[in-house]
Amino acid sequence: MKVAIDAMGGDYAPHEIVKGGVEAARKLGVTAVFVGNEPAITQELTQYRGQTFDSEVVPTTQVITFHDHPAQILRTHRDSSLYQAIKLVADGKCEAIVSAGSTGAQMAISLVVLGRIRGVLRPGLITAVPTLAGDPSYVIDTGAVADCTSENILQFARMGQVYCRVLTGKQMPSVGLLNIGEEQEKGSARIIEAHKVLRAKLTGFVGNVEPKDVFRHAADVVVCDGFVGNVFLKTVEGTAEALFAMMKSSLSSSFKGKVGGAIAHDSMHLVKDRLDYSQYGGVPLLGVKGISIVCHGRSDATAIYHAIRVAKDVNDQGLIGELTGLWK
Amino acid sequence: MKVAIDAMGGDYAPHEIVKGGVEAARKLGVTAVFVGNEPAITQELTQYRGQTFDSEVVPTTQVITFHDHPAQILRTHRDSSLYQAIKLVADGKCEAIVSAGSTGAQMAISLVVLGRIRGVLRPGLITAVPTLAGDPSYVIDTGAVADCTSENILQFARMGQVYCRVLTGKQMPSVGLLNIGEEQEKGSARIIEAHKVLRAKLTGFVGNVEPKDVFRHAADVVVCDGFVGNVFLKTVEGTAEALFAMMKSSLSSSFKGKVGGAIAHDSMHLVKDRLDYSQYGGVPLLGVKGISIVCHGRSDATAIYHAIRVAKDVNDQGLIGELTGLWK
Repeated sequence: MKVAIDAMGGDYAPHEIVKGGVEAARKLGVTAVFVGNEPAITQELTQYRGQTFDSEVVPTTQVITFHDHPAQILRTHRDSSLYQAIKLVADGKCEAIVSAGSTGAQMAISLVVLGRIRGVLRPGLITAVPTLAGDPSYVIDTGAVADCTSENILQFARMGQVYCRVLTGKQMPSVGLLNIGEEQEKGSARIIEAHKVLRAKLTGFVGNVEPKDVFRHAADVVVCDGFVGNVFLKTVEGTAEALFAMMKSSLSSSFKGKVGGAIAHDSMHLVKDRLDYSQYGGVPLLGVKGISIVCHGRSDATAIYHAIRVAKDVNDQGLIGELTGLWK
Repeated sequence: MKVAIDAMGGDYAPHEIVKGGVEAARKLGVTAVFVGNEPAITQELTQYRGQTFDSEVVPTTQVITFHDHPAQILRTHRDSSLYQAIKLVADGKCEAIVSAGSTGAQMAISLVVLGRIRGVLRPGLITAVPTLAGDPSYVIDTGAVADCTSENILQFARMGQVYCRVLTGKQMPSVGLLNIGEEQEKGSARIIEAHKVLRAKLTGFVGNVEPKDVFRHAADVVVCDGFVGNVFLKTVEGTAEALFAMMKSSLSSSFKGKVGGAIAHDSMHLVKDRLDYSQYGGVPLLGVKGISIVCHGRSDATAIYHAIRVAKDVNDQGLIGELTGLWK
């Protein structure tokens, strides 16, 4: 399997991206196809001389910055690493694309260059959220479609079920609707309508799920519109960040805390890792004709490695074929 | 000042409610007017014999349960502790009402029995969220109006500014719009529209605020529609809960962690308290003609004490007059 890796996207590109790609090539046996500035990539690769792994370099000349508007990039940045990496998948030269660059640009280019799976109204982003039960829950949509119809949400639910089944082997994953209460009449008008549609049409629907219950794994898949899903995800991140900062300052303010904090440090780090959903393998955009995995801008080599691992898993299990089968 | 206290509302009623009310009466010099089952309240009060504080008991006979629908309660439960406590404020016999009972019922009864301040389209719930900067940020609406117009959000912003000014003395509190990105074009159609209206009409508007920036005190007041605000709040709660649970299990799984955890325990508890927004004094419903403070169902005596403390503060500073002045 060949994975196109946008070597120039992300806060720690190309160093961490190449590192993660090499690790994936070594451990998973995939071919890492690094797309981007050739001298920079080649320079990074010299660090892994003597190691055995398959890699290729596809040179590109343009760089996307956060000032570039996704819609414009499609016309003006066709020789960017992100565009060309996605094109490798569209042209059948790679089986998946992984990038830690601009999420908006990756969504826009994937939509246009890969195209939608027949029957899909809008693709959605699916994110694994760690739970106390051990297994993650998969939340969709976490940012692709800010204004969803009930039909969009129903499609997200179905695609989420397929994704969960492919990854976990569970035959009928349960689906909950992210909401502010368990009762059917809770939420905005749009959510109440979506609840009705899910109840009528979706096998495996278990009703509303409150944010706290996501962490208790109340459902295998949690659906929501992209605006609410993104608020949810960013609030989880923000709360965890704030909490660790508070704990750190609280621990360092007393001698007793300092001693305890030093010893407890390893455990805190473990929990931090567990909450860090980048460790769960990036965020696939479901509904386009190809595996396109969006990584956090702050992705390090480990996050890139896990994204490629998931790309391989879902490719081996025939994700795109399964999704295509939903609307046949 | 007389504060009507719904002695029967909340998971720990009447014990913790009466305890918090007595503490407030002792320390703040208010008169605690306990409303509810007279024998139960009197029984609780015997524990504080010999202490000096002002209290009254207003007996009622009915009890609201979570099965009762807020709209029906207005007709069928007029002799409930919640209804009668709110009525004491409407009749001018008390200056504020505090309850840890059903939020929906308290909102519905407050709206009908107290009535809206002239000019207010919809009242909103305002919640203090702890930040790393020390001072809390005030988030409005956190659950009263699930489907907001831009005009609703503009009103929430103005009421939030008044509330913040009254509590902190800050003359022109800054207001941010809770959103998934800083750029003006981010978010749902409704939020993009609200952004435009705030930018055009609100002095002190600082633009969009992402969830993580709420904890950095990016704005004194953060506005959002009630659905998103409630998701935000419940996600903060859920994340903190999950994180502490993960940390606890991680710490107790190793000897090193056990030792560190035992020592770090006090500090973790401090942080937990700091994140617990019930300590910040309950959640006032802004826009009704009277001070109506909604407390978390799990409120203990401390939470009730703080809610009464805030009720006294805002009453002393003339909150209702200030809010009324907004639309004169």
